[in-house]
Amino acid sequence: MNCEVIAVGTELLLGQIVDTNSSWIGEQLALAGIDSHHQVKVGDNFERMTGVLIQALERSDSVIMCGGLGPTQDDITREVVAAALGVDLVRRDDLVERISAVFGGRGRPMPENNLRQADVPAGAEVMPVMPGTAPGFMISTGDQVVYAVPGVPWEMQQMVSECVLPDLKRRAGITAVIKSRTLRTWGDSESGLAEKLHGELERLDKTGECTIAFLASGMEGLKVRLTAKASSEDAVDEILAGEERIVRGLIGDIVFGVDGETMESAVLDALRSRGWTLALAESLTGGMIGARLTAVPGASDVFRGGLVSYAGDIKFDLLGVPEGPVVSEEAVTAMARGAARLLGADCAIAVTGVAGPDPLDGQEPGTVWMATLVAGEVVAIRVKFPFDRERTRQFTTVSVLNNLRVRILAGR
Amino acid sequence: MNCEVIAVGTELLLGQIVDTNSSWIGEQLALAGIDSHHQVKVGDNFERMTGVLIQALERSDSVIMCGGLGPTQDDITREVVAAALGVDLVRRDDLVERISAVFGGRGRPMPENNLRQADVPAGAEVMPVMPGTAPGFMISTGDQVVYAVPGVPWEMQQMVSECVLPDLKRRAGITAVIKSRTLRTWGDSESGLAEKLHGELERLDKTGECTIAFLASGMEGLKVRLTAKASSEDAVDEILAGEERIVRGLIGDIVFGVDGETMESAVLDALRSRGWTLALAESLTGGMIGARLTAVPGASDVFRGGLVSYAGDIKFDLLGVPEGPVVSEEAVTAMARGAARLLGADCAIAVTGVAGPDPLDGQEPGTVWMATLVAGEVVAIRVKFPFDRERTRQFTTVSVLNNLRVRILAGR
Repeated sequence: MNCEVIAVGTELLLGQIVDTNSSWIGEQLALAGIDSHHQVKVGDNFERMTGVLIQALERSDSVIMCGGLGPTQDDITREVVAAALGVDLVRRDDLVERISAVFGGRGRPMPENNLRQADVPAGAEVMPVMPGTAPGFMISTGDQVVYAVPGVPWEMQQMVSECVLPDLKRRAGITAVIKSRTLRTWGDSESGLAEKLHGELERLDKTGECTIAFLASGMEGLKVRLTAKASSEDAVDEILAGEERIVRGLIGDIVFGVDGETMESAVLDALRSRGWTLALAESLTGGMIGARLTAVPGASDVFRGGLVSYAGDIKFDLLGVPEGPVVSEEAVTAMARGAARLLGADCAIAVTGVAGPDPLDGQEPGTVWMATLVAGEVVAIRVKFPFDRERTRQFTTVSVLNNLRVRILAGR
Repeated sequence: MNCEVIAVGTELLLGQIVDTNSSWIGEQLALAGIDSHHQVKVGDNFERMTGVLIQALERSDSVIMCGGLGPTQDDITREVVAAALGVDLVRRDDLVERISAVFGGRGRPMPENNLRQADVPAGAEVMPVMPGTAPGFMISTGDQVVYAVPGVPWEMQQMVSECVLPDLKRRAGITAVIKSRTLRTWGDSESGLAEKLHGELERLDKTGECTIAFLASGMEGLKVRLTAKASSEDAVDEILAGEERIVRGLIGDIVFGVDGETMESAVLDALRSRGWTLALAESLTGGMIGARLTAVPGASDVFRGGLVSYAGDIKFDLLGVPEGPVVSEEAVTAMARGAARLLGADCAIAVTGVAGPDPLDGQEPGTVWMATLVAGEVVAIRVKFPFDRERTRQFTTVSVLNNLRVRILAGR
């Protein structure tokens, strides 16, 4: 079973919007065990849309059309599907009611145009979920099927998850459950991880019970994705849990989270579990570490605050940094102690360095001193990043958060 | 003249990488006056790649294939183009030399595999620029042309800008120059802008000398893009400069920058022009304002630093905020004065509010007080954003930066 994705919208071709919908659908199809060999972008044009749909039906078992279901005159996916399949459009009274109800609930009058959204090709089944005001539909033609979903990402995602994927799997006779679990790591390279997991990768190659893939994701870390297939949800969860234990045993504490867990939530959780609070002294990151920590709801119970000491004299006057070079072990150590004292916290993070593009204090761009204060003791590390200004700041942020996480979990 | 874009790579279909290349190419084609009606993603598979290329040549005047020019076995764009056009692959000695030279320059031995990159379809012209190790090429077939460029974005972008677009325009007989200028605005809605520009939009509809498009871009503001076409670079620059004057006259000081100019660089430039320095007191934004300002190289000559006063008692103890509710006019005013005093700056920004999801101090999520201190005077504004946590923080950041910008330019 394979499925072609057609993303509709002139704004996609003009590059005004990047087509992230078909990427998302592609990933979901892969996880469901369905191949996607072609994905096409086409503008809001009747002939060309009809052309690509007919062509898709010549080479693919099923098609998801994404977009063009809105109320305006250039939203013509309904007309295109009807024409390609040689059926009429019919106005559905139940849809007129549902769409009117949405507008009623918002206390706004319904524009006449929105009634067009109640039209579907004859023989189509309307999708039972309708997160927005655009109904989606599916229509069979012989052994094949065409799905039409809106282009608004959250509307599309709900319809694909709840209607399209289950229907596709049923048609494909896929009874197996495929699931993924992503272990998020920081501090090793792809080749380093591959080396540590070499034996396990060879074992899995033989047993086939699970696959492991690496995804480098910049400051989000290097992701290790485990994917397994089994006859039931419980069975696949058990395989993934077992594999996670094996992998964690081999790569150790570089795993900072699973799936959606971020470095900042891992750090806040670690602090919370000890009942400790945190203060920051940021120089080259300019507030980035604090911004990331406070992106997590509930950060306030452990995060006290930070001082962005961008000017040198602020480091001297407020943090007690001794006069001298500000990109140094002495400076970063004093910054960490100063932040904890000034802001009244148990733990502290301090960073000072040269983001670039120009050198500073005779140090090359990319030179960074980062310090963590845990249990009264400061550990300072010097790193030389080979990156530009923004990536140097990003990697400093995540590296020092990871240093703190590892020390808190070790209790020292 | 139209041009189809084929993005090659199984990782694109699986959603592991979002295809931003064809969006970028689409925008460049539009600006060059060339239509792009179809854009296709296909995996690293010989039959399917050949199939989509042949199909593209049936419906489009020209084709850009993007990706599949690397040294590994699944990089087969060279083979596919040769097969689709019915020609042989030939190994080019000059390319062998160029590729060897790149490796020599990096002091690394060249893997044997990389020699595959010296193969091109017979009759193809090698692109004169080669930013990485992958050569690009172009090959004519009758009136049509196929371009092959690497999938690495910066390599692709340089080849498309310097080789593909000029060649396409020459073939299309386009002697006109099309250019865009984007005015970046903050503080008005799309419908508000459309109303203010209504008369001008009508005038341009008649004269056709320029077009205006609005692009809502979240925390990057609402962009107003002017596009003009003329016979020479100078002539089109003159039209755009004239239109910019007219539009600025109608929408006023909500324009904070042009093209790549950001709000933070506009604020830093405004401060610099007055010789003033800046300090911050951030609560709900947690460091985001500082992080944005320090993303700009050279920020250090005007940006002194900031205090992230996340915990209430830090506001009281270090910034002199009077005991009482911390989401209030009194608190934000004291924070701004306290930051300027503590960090020794001429101007200050302070923000305090409820990012959500929970209420705070009896105030609803989205409630934000923001203050600016300029020329000794604090102006505080209360806003109620209808957003989630992250967007509330983002819009607070840009809004207060814009408030400061407008006050500095007004000198009060």
